[in-house]
Amino acid sequence: MEPVTNKVYHSWNVPSSQFAKNTFNPIRSIVDGMKLTPNPEKDMIALSIGDPTVFGNMTLPDEAEESVIESVKSRKFNGYGQSFGIEKARAAIAEYSSKEGYKITAKDVILTSGCSGALDLCIACLCNPEQNLLIPRPGFSIYKTLAESHKIIVKDYNLLPNKSWQVDLEHLESLIDDRTAAIVVNNPSNPCGSVYNKEHLIEILNLAEKYKIPIIADEIYEHFVYSGNTYYPIASLTETVPVLSCSGLTKRFIVPGWRLGWIIIFDKNDVFEAEVRQGLISLSQRILGPSSIVQGAVEGILAKTPQKFFEETIEFVETNAKLFYNNIVRIAGLHPVMPQGAMYMMIGIEMEKFPEYIDDVAFTEALVREESVFCLPAKCFQYPGFFRVVLTVPRDKLSLACDRIAEFCTRHYSDVGSGGNVTVNGTN
Amino acid sequence: MEPVTNKVYHSWNVPSSQFAKNTFNPIRSIVDGMKLTPNPEKDMIALSIGDPTVFGNMTLPDEAEESVIESVKSRKFNGYGQSFGIEKARAAIAEYSSKEGYKITAKDVILTSGCSGALDLCIACLCNPEQNLLIPRPGFSIYKTLAESHKIIVKDYNLLPNKSWQVDLEHLESLIDDRTAAIVVNNPSNPCGSVYNKEHLIEILNLAEKYKIPIIADEIYEHFVYSGNTYYPIASLTETVPVLSCSGLTKRFIVPGWRLGWIIIFDKNDVFEAEVRQGLISLSQRILGPSSIVQGAVEGILAKTPQKFFEETIEFVETNAKLFYNNIVRIAGLHPVMPQGAMYMMIGIEMEKFPEYIDDVAFTEALVREESVFCLPAKCFQYPGFFRVVLTVPRDKLSLACDRIAEFCTRHYSDVGSGGNVTVNGTN
Repeated sequence: MEPVTNKVYHSWNVPSSQFAKNTFNPIRSIVDGMKLTPNPEKDMIALSIGDPTVFGNMTLPDEAEESVIESVKSRKFNGYGQSFGIEKARAAIAEYSSKEGYKITAKDVILTSGCSGALDLCIACLCNPEQNLLIPRPGFSIYKTLAESHKIIVKDYNLLPNKSWQVDLEHLESLIDDRTAAIVVNNPSNPCGSVYNKEHLIEILNLAEKYKIPIIADEIYEHFVYSGNTYYPIASLTETVPVLSCSGLTKRFIVPGWRLGWIIIFDKNDVFEAEVRQGLISLSQRILGPSSIVQGAVEGILAKTPQKFFEETIEFVETNAKLFYNNIVRIAGLHPVMPQGAMYMMIGIEMEKFPEYIDDVAFTEALVREESVFCLPAKCFQYPGFFRVVLTVPRDKLSLACDRIAEFCTRHYSDVGSGGNVTVNGTN
Repeated sequence: MEPVTNKVYHSWNVPSSQFAKNTFNPIRSIVDGMKLTPNPEKDMIALSIGDPTVFGNMTLPDEAEESVIESVKSRKFNGYGQSFGIEKARAAIAEYSSKEGYKITAKDVILTSGCSGALDLCIACLCNPEQNLLIPRPGFSIYKTLAESHKIIVKDYNLLPNKSWQVDLEHLESLIDDRTAAIVVNNPSNPCGSVYNKEHLIEILNLAEKYKIPIIADEIYEHFVYSGNTYYPIASLTETVPVLSCSGLTKRFIVPGWRLGWIIIFDKNDVFEAEVRQGLISLSQRILGPSSIVQGAVEGILAKTPQKFFEETIEFVETNAKLFYNNIVRIAGLHPVMPQGAMYMMIGIEMEKFPEYIDDVAFTEALVREESVFCLPAKCFQYPGFFRVVLTVPRDKLSLACDRIAEFCTRHYSDVGSGGNVTVNGTN
């Protein structure tokens, strides 16, 4: 310890904390660093924003709107509730999330400020500084942001694009050590749109069981799966592995701004009873939970929204996915991976066929500059050489975007580099 | 570093993190530890809960309700905004908080999940582990909870009950050292109900200026002052000291559950430009701000709520304060300190006159057991020997509570201990 003095300073110098400095969003910093100047002759089409409300074509169910208005008018939900959520809302979520064979009760539900709030609580509760958290690559950047600010070490386990983004189990296992505090499993996935089958989820659970490592399941896209696929909550497939499942109203009800998320504690053998359950409740006291008027509406939203609403939403996105895939797969140099759910598609770029561009960031920058189409470079997801598109866009814009991407690729495709020397910086 | 191995464990053992363990709410733990068994023959009167909605006598302005319904119905506020708040809401708050002589713009406003979210961001952004944060004693427990979880050291500076809870400046100065990262100033105050005059605020600012320490101003009770008192935002009285002021809709608009708080960055000389402003924005990305439908309503709420609403609210609370004070001041052994604002009153207990009770916790426990009146022991605010009452209760309940407290004190008052030996555990 340096000596402590009581000194009169002559100038102001107020730094921010390490915690603030370490709260770092890689997407923000990559996107902010990009030169995003659209072609002035073409309307901008943003396929980059994971917010289904932005184009106005997708909107919440009427029942959700009515439930919130009812909640506000009742004047019953203006005060403080329990920091982890009012009983009525937690009970409704418990019922909504219960399935035959696994029953959830209100006490296993913790309400949070959106799904990112749920992930924040789970990561902060399970991991200490210098411990490590295993996260998928490609993966959503928030896991890294939340963990690294607490000096938790993040290790990326690989997903396999040729196996519909299943986990490379050997690689996952090779990363596990005595300091591994938790494994994040994101299913259905952002940015991949993958939906794991039962067998694969059990393979992941077997590893967790072997090394006794709890799972943080990011299941915000639960139920958001295309025809022919089935969503299994990972917790429903284990009798032993304790799971914290994170979800919320955000994606399924198309209200990301409402910030109503939750954690469900799946813990058949009371592994989390000793400390973790209380830890989550303690952490929820920092900001006292999501807005009470949305909490008051949860029961109505979950009970009244008709199945048809979800079916129509998914059908729209799935049709977009097929349309996009069928257009892109024909473009030389691009390799889309067909998703099975969620709202995203990843597209591989055969970089040596586009020698003008040093990486996915330069490629997507040029696509904005020439065609006014903005796709997120997958460097944002720790996965250079790919880009991600959002599939919630109106159909006409999606078609137009496909045409423009095709033109762009045709213009810049070059076979010079194939099988041999790559002319980086070449212009032909 | 210990060697890292890849070991197969045979049983589950999942501890919570130190961060979760250190997120510790002293109020919760004191109250949870109390034996709160009311007298079955008397209805419970809780003077303990700092939530003005709890008795149903105080309610939000109609204009607030209407503004939220309008926001929901517009369907414009269902998506993600900027993590630190949508422009329209920040601009409205900037205008609401601007005064002649100091103009605030939208860029100086950061929206948060309630005022506790605002305090969380400010403390986490300004202080590193092992640095210290100066907080008032008696003071609201959340400062300690938020700081200690980040291993920030908390030092309590004394407030002076005989000087209307002004800061003991000499004591405050004696605590300042090279590791002091910020001073929390809470005005108007919870639990004291004090409202500092201009001169006193300038004295505090002079110390901050002398040692170049920024101020975190907890001003959630701004404007909530009784007749004859004036509220000054501390930032309005300095040209040099950078201030982060925390407030929200919570108390003035009687909607604590809505979780709409904010930070206003007062920084005339750009001290926070180097790092702190960006730090706050980075931290806001952890949970992506308060609920969008409340954000969409802020402009309407601030613009349309009539002055009369606030006047009536304050008049009601002030009349309660006087009534309570006038009743309590006559009770032998109790010493109320008349508040000048906010919703609380602190009452000193001459403990040696109540020798049956070892401390304020035992005293308030007995008050519940015998009279079904629950007041919060000021041990919750690091200030044993006092208790706090909430002044937002319906008048008839308040009067009844006064009568019961008087009966209780008359029954247990004992002069035996005065000036000499105190009979602890005595029953007379």
